[in-house]
Amino acid sequence: MNVTGYAGAELARLLADHPLVDLVSVTGRSAAGQKLGQVFPHLAPLDLAIEAELGQVDFIFSALPHHESAERLLPFIEKGVPAVDLSADFRLKDAALYDEWYAFRHPAPQLLADAVYGLPELNRAEIQSARLVANPGCYPTASILALAPALKAGIVTGGIIVDAKSGISGAGRALKLASHFCEADEDVCAYAIAAHRHQPEIFQALKAIDGAMPALTFTPHLTPMTRGILATCYARLNGELTAEEAVRLYAGFYAGEPFVRVVPEPPHTKHASGSNACLVNAAVDRRAGMLIVTAAIDNLVKGAAGQAIQNMNLMLGYPETTGLPRLARFP
Amino acid sequence: MNVTGYAGAELARLLADHPLVDLVSVTGRSAAGQKLGQVFPHLAPLDLAIEAELGQVDFIFSALPHHESAERLLPFIEKGVPAVDLSADFRLKDAALYDEWYAFRHPAPQLLADAVYGLPELNRAEIQSARLVANPGCYPTASILALAPALKAGIVTGGIIVDAKSGISGAGRALKLASHFCEADEDVCAYAIAAHRHQPEIFQALKAIDGAMPALTFTPHLTPMTRGILATCYARLNGELTAEEAVRLYAGFYAGEPFVRVVPEPPHTKHASGSNACLVNAAVDRRAGMLIVTAAIDNLVKGAAGQAIQNMNLMLGYPETTGLPRLARFP
Amino acid sequence: MNVTGYAGAELARLLADHPLVDLVSVTGRSAAGQKLGQVFPHLAPLDLAIEAELGQVDFIFSALPHHESAERLLPFIEKGVPAVDLSADFRLKDAALYDEWYAFRHPAPQLLADAVYGLPELNRAEIQSARLVANPGCYPTASILALAPALKAGIVTGGIIVDAKSGISGAGRALKLASHFCEADEDVCAYAIAAHRHQPEIFQALKAIDGAMPALTFTPHLTPMTRGILATCYARLNGELTAEEAVRLYAGFYAGEPFVRVVPEPPHTKHASGSNACLVNAAVDRRAGMLIVTAAIDNLVKGAAGQAIQNMNLMLGYPETTGLPRLARFP
Amino acid sequence: MNVTGYAGAELARLLADHPLVDLVSVTGRSAAGQKLGQVFPHLAPLDLAIEAELGQVDFIFSALPHHESAERLLPFIEKGVPAVDLSADFRLKDAALYDEWYAFRHPAPQLLADAVYGLPELNRAEIQSARLVANPGCYPTASILALAPALKAGIVTGGIIVDAKSGISGAGRALKLASHFCEADEDVCAYAIAAHRHQPEIFQALKAIDGAMPALTFTPHLTPMTRGILATCYARLNGELTAEEAVRLYAGFYAGEPFVRVVPEPPHTKHASGSNACLVNAAVDRRAGMLIVTAAIDNLVKGAAGQAIQNMNLMLGYPETTGLPRLARFP
Repeated sequence: MNVTGYAGAELARLLADHPLVDLVSVTGRSAAGQKLGQVFPHLAPLDLAIEAELGQVDFIFSALPHHESAERLLPFIEKGVPAVDLSADFRLKDAALYDEWYAFRHPAPQLLADAVYGLPELNRAEIQSARLVANPGCYPTASILALAPALKAGIVTGGIIVDAKSGISGAGRALKLASHFCEADEDVCAYAIAAHRHQPEIFQALKAIDGAMPALTFTPHLTPMTRGILATCYARLNGELTAEEAVRLYAGFYAGEPFVRVVPEPPHTKHASGSNACLVNAAVDRRAGMLIVTAAIDNLVKGAAGQAIQNMNLMLGYPETTGLPRLARFP
Repeated sequence: MNVTGYAGAELARLLADHPLVDLVSVTGRSAAGQKLGQVFPHLAPLDLAIEAELGQVDFIFSALPHHESAERLLPFIEKGVPAVDLSADFRLKDAALYDEWYAFRHPAPQLLADAVYGLPELNRAEIQSARLVANPGCYPTASILALAPALKAGIVTGGIIVDAKSGISGAGRALKLASHFCEADEDVCAYAIAAHRHQPEIFQALKAIDGAMPALTFTPHLTPMTRGILATCYARLNGELTAEEAVRLYAGFYAGEPFVRVVPEPPHTKHASGSNACLVNAAVDRRAGMLIVTAAIDNLVKGAAGQAIQNMNLMLGYPETTGLPRLARFP
Repeated sequence: MNVTGYAGAELARLLADHPLVDLVSVTGRSAAGQKLGQVFPHLAPLDLAIEAELGQVDFIFSALPHHESAERLLPFIEKGVPAVDLSADFRLKDAALYDEWYAFRHPAPQLLADAVYGLPELNRAEIQSARLVANPGCYPTASILALAPALKAGIVTGGIIVDAKSGISGAGRALKLASHFCEADEDVCAYAIAAHRHQPEIFQALKAIDGAMPALTFTPHLTPMTRGILATCYARLNGELTAEEAVRLYAGFYAGEPFVRVVPEPPHTKHASGSNACLVNAAVDRRAGMLIVTAAIDNLVKGAAGQAIQNMNLMLGYPETTGLPRLARFP
Repeated sequence: MNVTGYAGAELARLLADHPLVDLVSVTGRSAAGQKLGQVFPHLAPLDLAIEAELGQVDFIFSALPHHESAERLLPFIEKGVPAVDLSADFRLKDAALYDEWYAFRHPAPQLLADAVYGLPELNRAEIQSARLVANPGCYPTASILALAPALKAGIVTGGIIVDAKSGISGAGRALKLASHFCEADEDVCAYAIAAHRHQPEIFQALKAIDGAMPALTFTPHLTPMTRGILATCYARLNGELTAEEAVRLYAGFYAGEPFVRVVPEPPHTKHASGSNACLVNAAVDRRAGMLIVTAAIDNLVKGAAGQAIQNMNLMLGYPETTGLPRLARFP
């Protein structure tokens, strides 16, 4: 549902080449009746028409905006159709947070407990048996994967800072001055300081790992590129830790993961671009007693469509990596 | 001296239009004998030849690399020619730091005490009477201007984190893979984590304001634009502070400053581009008790050539803003 | 009038630093009542309010859209206020072309004969005595300056092709998908093939030089940068011409011009960026008997605001270069 | 052979996911002994070592520079190993052109007649039975596919002009000032006017279709993006032709082609990016009697590595589209 945004288009592209899936029906709010290729010329070869209502499907992805997504998914959920929701509507466990951060009353708070947060590296087993998976946000994917090993190992203490840098596609295809080429090109800025909706999502996930974590400061930035997120994460070490120990801890934590690569240098977003990979580097600022973890993803793949397919693969019992690009497109 | 880098070229451009200055002699190491326009076509109208050795001058700017800069400046300093050094060679007060961070033995440690750190907003009076001014680094300019008001006011405590984002021109004109278009375009990465040479420079300046400041974590990043630095600075508040109080504190601190503008939203680097301005925004993360200050400059102007001219103006008793662009070029 | 577009903002920026001009009144259609700095943060230091109607002025610039510009200028023209119109409304001599290419009936066809086409390098004398100057379009400025010497010298024959590449700021600040960062970034495309409104404008100017010129093919392209136009112009030589002769012809034609530089290599748009310069290179394809001229300008300066000020300087008897940047900002 | 350039790396990436191919040996001149992931971090998951000499292989791709490629391929060709050469060494039929354009004496002129020019849309049958295929250059691929239908149909006359715009990756990974980020960013320029080595290659191919074609003017440009080529081609119509007829002619010519799409609007390079597609639009400038064809490709895929695999598929009897991305990655 809603193929007319960038995440929806990326989902359509990846699903079209997924060997175990038939993409049978796509919807789009304003573009119903048009061919997909009229809205996204690069998808013209798929020869699909955009429908107002979803046809008969065995599995649903929703890339609708928040609030609308939950409302439109509900009938299908009640019929038992398995679904991955790319919106934020089933990510938070506490319904009151939707009032506070998203300014709407959640239409189905009873589902929040059962919905599984779809970060396979942390919740693989739950995803495998879930009917409703809440696909993580782009910033949370990078941030949580960056911090989980340290929090699980109990090596950090105090509040955490995530300073994140995103490409412009995270702001979507809707026209706005901040995404106007001449304004965004050759520019970097912070936005939504202490007020971004991904803050409670990251905080909830980290808190679930380390209940003692007191606070999270999350600052997103726009950078002049189309794709990519780099999360630079700062956490105070509660003891001595060498750089080598940090690397060993991280490498061990993610051993065997098909899509997380612990890398020896701070990762470049471009080295993840187009792939479902998350590249993670752990470093230590010895003078300040600080752990600094940087994580890079493609916000439209591992941060949205790719991870949604990874979740679908798990839910349907397919091999987890099916249909997902493991290698970045570079340069 | 050394007009063949980006900072040197910017200096030549700005000096050429400075109404009280004659640009009489420019040098360049490898390009001696060429016309300036052969090395930088945009400067062809200046019709200057690049010399191997400096001619007879009344004032010197050095844009040489560190170590070489000090050695080449020494004879002129001894002759009493006033100078602004854009390299790092006279920025640090403790000569041992040059061994540690720059890997060379300082050739004139006795001058370090007298050299004035050329940040006019903090050291205007000393600059006015100085013979040798150390022009601040690009990252330090943004970082120190962002943090000075809070540290002076004593409203923050504990270690400080500066997460800085730079355009590629900060890496200079020397060819390297990290500055190769296809590698840097559409990419964001951190580099030199806990190891960048601007760390001790920022630390020294902040420590001079607040001797109790325990530690500074400085993480630079490359972003795909030519010019601009955004410094995002995190400091823990030692008490309650509203956003309004933060703004008022900053506005008061910089009242009357010709080149620092306290702005109501997180600044865009593009709104400072081409000008000598530093745009500063102070925000508060109430949940985390954190002050978040963002500062934007053009790294080649306020972060290098423009500030060097601002320092020269002060040293020679000219009006401080002479020859300096106050308005950014946008878009 | 209409400071809310990119050309208007650039005009305000340059006029603010023009030593012989007071910028007393700026208007903007939708933004009336706001401070200029709310619409364009980089202009906040000017501390001007945007008005609905123009105040008392001695000279007018209009950066309004076509049709509206003529209608709003008419009362002032009738009162004898000298004006430079940055819109297309007084560029074409044949009123019927406005019906054909711009789809409106010209409100004052009687003024078209007297309005002077403001390309100083070709029409300096007429501009000096004009009351109403039509500022050339961005593409026409580069294209006509590239071709005029060859046409005047009578060395080319047959139809002419102009293949032009523009940055995105030429498309203005109005939101549209073609200017959305994620669509324009990393993309090149042609548009308006054989249908762009600058075709009749270029054709008229070239035809005025060489009445025998049979046809002009003009193809504009969008390239992923903010500023700059490169016009690559192809004209068949009617005899033998060496590359050296071409260069000599062009250098002679533009000798003494303050803003046109004949350069020995194909020019880079970046070497003109931010300045009022037009860089021109003439080359010969000996095998094909073709003259290939490339010309680079900054579309917002020499292609709009800068040239408008150059025209004003001439109209008011000021030195022609006053207030205009001669050096590009690079990099 | 030579995986250390961008085309070689793209080839490795695509071959790694080709279901009918085992990538068994990669070589690189300067990087021998290193892991592939050290040279190209995005290829680290392939876990391949770069060798100095090629191992035992059944099929060779050479991405070596010209001259060296022929010399290193010769022993394998003599042993009968089928090969696709991505260099220019077997593209030209007339050995003298190598002296003239490439400044070397061809080491095996006797092979030039048998080598097949690997543009499947024109030479599919010959490729299927070839042992040595010369993979077309990036500019020629776009230019020839743009012009072939018109020349075959005999609707154009006189000299032809190709004005081509390329991303920077076409200039390779070798460090040079023209590819330095700060010089190439926000810049467009022409280069090698009337002197680019792809001119004789395009001319040879067009001449093979229409022996009467008198001349070709080819002007390449650099544009600030990593990937993509847009070729804008101008040819004089020898009679009346409507836009509809042009489109019909082109659609008919490429009917059934898996990788050429005739599109209704001028194509965007971004709509081909990452795919093996060539998007072609035919338009008519009625006033000038000119056919204007624009063609967009990804220079590293259809312009290099993708087409090389397409050729291999044909040579080995595999389905032609195997392992090749049909959908662009957008945005």
